[in-house]
Amino acid sequence: MIHPTDTIVALSTPSGEGALGVVRLSGPDARRIADRIFCGKDLLQVPSHTIHYGTIRTSGGKILDECLVSVFIAPRSYTKEDMVEFSCHGSSYILEGLVRLLITEGARYAEPGEFTKRAFLHGQLDLSQAEAVAELIAADTGAQHRVALSQLRGGISDRIKNLRSRLIKFASLIELENDFSEEDVEFADRTALKDLVTELMDFVQPLIRSFAYGNALKKGVAVAIVGAPNVGKSTLLNALLQEEKAIVSAIPGTTRDVIEDSIRIDGILYRFIDTAGLRSTEDEIEAQGIRRSYEQITKADIVLYMSVVDEDTHELAARFKELNLSADQKAIILLNKADQYKHLCHRYDIQESVSSLCGRRETLLMSAKRGDGLDSLKQLLVDLVRSDHLSDQMVITNLRHYEALRNTLQSLQAVQEGLSNDLPSDLIALDLRHAMHALGTISGEIYSDDLLDSIFRDFCIGK
Amino acid sequence: MIHPTDTIVALSTPSGEGALGVVRLSGPDARRIADRIFCGKDLLQVPSHTIHYGTIRTSGGKILDECLVSVFIAPRSYTKEDMVEFSCHGSSYILEGLVRLLITEGARYAEPGEFTKRAFLHGQLDLSQAEAVAELIAADTGAQHRVALSQLRGGISDRIKNLRSRLIKFASLIELENDFSEEDVEFADRTALKDLVTELMDFVQPLIRSFAYGNALKKGVAVAIVGAPNVGKSTLLNALLQEEKAIVSAIPGTTRDVIEDSIRIDGILYRFIDTAGLRSTEDEIEAQGIRRSYEQITKADIVLYMSVVDEDTHELAARFKELNLSADQKAIILLNKADQYKHLCHRYDIQESVSSLCGRRETLLMSAKRGDGLDSLKQLLVDLVRSDHLSDQMVITNLRHYEALRNTLQSLQAVQEGLSNDLPSDLIALDLRHAMHALGTISGEIYSDDLLDSIFRDFCIGK
Repeated sequence: MIHPTDTIVALSTPSGEGALGVVRLSGPDARRIADRIFCGKDLLQVPSHTIHYGTIRTSGGKILDECLVSVFIAPRSYTKEDMVEFSCHGSSYILEGLVRLLITEGARYAEPGEFTKRAFLHGQLDLSQAEAVAELIAADTGAQHRVALSQLRGGISDRIKNLRSRLIKFASLIELENDFSEEDVEFADRTALKDLVTELMDFVQPLIRSFAYGNALKKGVAVAIVGAPNVGKSTLLNALLQEEKAIVSAIPGTTRDVIEDSIRIDGILYRFIDTAGLRSTEDEIEAQGIRRSYEQITKADIVLYMSVVDEDTHELAARFKELNLSADQKAIILLNKADQYKHLCHRYDIQESVSSLCGRRETLLMSAKRGDGLDSLKQLLVDLVRSDHLSDQMVITNLRHYEALRNTLQSLQAVQEGLSNDLPSDLIALDLRHAMHALGTISGEIYSDDLLDSIFRDFCIGK
Repeated sequence: MIHPTDTIVALSTPSGEGALGVVRLSGPDARRIADRIFCGKDLLQVPSHTIHYGTIRTSGGKILDECLVSVFIAPRSYTKEDMVEFSCHGSSYILEGLVRLLITEGARYAEPGEFTKRAFLHGQLDLSQAEAVAELIAADTGAQHRVALSQLRGGISDRIKNLRSRLIKFASLIELENDFSEEDVEFADRTALKDLVTELMDFVQPLIRSFAYGNALKKGVAVAIVGAPNVGKSTLLNALLQEEKAIVSAIPGTTRDVIEDSIRIDGILYRFIDTAGLRSTEDEIEAQGIRRSYEQITKADIVLYMSVVDEDTHELAARFKELNLSADQKAIILLNKADQYKHLCHRYDIQESVSSLCGRRETLLMSAKRGDGLDSLKQLLVDLVRSDHLSDQMVITNLRHYEALRNTLQSLQAVQEGLSNDLPSDLIALDLRHAMHALGTISGEIYSDDLLDSIFRDFCIGK
């Protein structure tokens, strides 16, 4: 590890007027530099984790501000370096002046995420925890927040590190066999290794699967509301959004534009897309709307296919299949206007029949207008997204982790095959090394400068 | 003074994503409330001015964030109450969640400026210092910053308090005379009182005059550049702004719109207004531009009247007088294109003659095109604004202070007259009380709830 020798400075609170703003200084000279401009206390003599009142003076002796200074002595700080934080009046003039002053006194303007990068380089955080810091700051739903916080607290990376170190033990034993290859010895217990590989695969596979969910948490779940004209799609959207967003009318073909709005259900962000009714039309503008509906369908994570209760179930199923949903796409079939068909005792039979004709898709009787079935629909939406992810602690949201885990799985599969086919130990050792490498990049036991640059580039300044 | 009994909470850093955000808690229960949601240290046991790492837990035991907590024990805090500051990850989700959580635990959402209001109520700051806090935060030029900081540090209010307490002494002696009015005694030394009143007036008068300057610092100084067509007004504006803002051409009447841009000279903000050339015209659009020029002239703090060196000086002076500047308005007469008249040995005589014909206005030979005289012009602009305000410590920027000082001066004048005319002591005592009252409102020795409300209403939340 390269330990930085210079001292960095940045404004750590959002810019703009506010009651207070915090300027942060980290590095071996942090206390010395801060002390040069601070009047009120000798910052080189005060204990760690203490706060001191004083004034900031320019080199000409003019007062820039009255402030509170917090002192952290290495290694008891976020970066594990000496750190000083100035809490000033929240004026851009003062805060910019202070940063300039500290640069004049020997600090360097920090790059985005450089404080967190130093925390990583000094072993305060592993790499996936460092990445979680940025995700925690960006989180604006409860679900995103839970996942990021669990990642920050090391939920997955502890397990990964533990499994990886056990893998390393086997790898070194197998490498040892290679050194004695003439003698046909086996230091590594093949059965125990097989068990470990299986354990690792059982750990990695659900994580890989969780990425779709993690991604949905991050970006929101796209839900397209589709169906023939006038089945009540806009009414449903309005009921969900609890406001009159879409123009509702009895004239088929009212909705031509793609309307989008989002709500949170149980901390998950759903982006609802109301689409033009699907039908053959001569109207060029409406036809364009319908083409866009089909585009939206292919991009949706979940499709709400809407129909009315009394429709021919076979025809309904045929048109549902025409949507050509991919294997990843989820769907709920809504049988709307159920309130108008209360007299139909067999409406539950219809529901059952539609479900079975459409490949056991979830099917719901409802009345968008009256709000009947709305809560069940919301629950279904949550269930479809959560599916088998029982705990947010076992969810990955980061594309880099996803790719590393897929590489790990590939190499583990190769190890497994190699063991089954009694391949020579040097080939098995090679695949083991690949798996260990891929796992090691997640928590940053293995990293390159380029990787760090690409990770911290997207951080905010001052973090 | 009413001492608040509840505990207030607010986000003190600007909203928006950032590396960190600070939530502030102040009041008798601050430490107790903070301790209920904080895991890591018993906040009721730690010393003042110390920082502690831990986690924030919701009532359900879920972690909201990892954070640093700063503890301040009364009276050693900004508000002189117990205070706790949470330094969290700068995510709106976390910061809003934390404020909600603290409210659930018994805190109340703070009103704008309520922390500073409490600092005032507990005697940490006087009222003019409290007002300076908001002005310091809003300051975005060096001059505004200097004035606000000097006000915050008590520059003027210390003097005011001292003079007021001496006034109080006299007032009480005179009131005593009233009690013995039958006996015709004089407890208060009339000569010493006269001297004090003179001293006070000498202190108050320049402060009142400084308000125009203070206001200019706050809002910027409006400078109109006016003159006949094609004397080089746009060229001058460009030279001042150092960019090609106005369209410069040799065709008279090119500038029709009022162009505005601002620069800082020596920390003071100048808003320059280039106007259409003043002349009779048939062109309706140009005529409209000229009408607007005259409007700009009446609104300007400083008028730069531009002409060329070789013009008839008497005609120039006549047209300058037509501008009808008010007594408050300042002007500089610019004799432009001096480079083209280098052969005129008598150009300095022209300058002298113009100056004397225009009532000894500042007159400057220059070449806007070549930049000759530009630095002298800038220096003149600064001198005109600063005028007799030698120090930013003796400047008031606040309308409320201005009005209080004018009331003080009026009452002092009445006292002075009363003393000269040997008026009865009860009448003099009345005017003295008025003066003391007006002075007392500045630093807040006298205040009403309505006054406090109107002052703190404009503060940011969390300050």
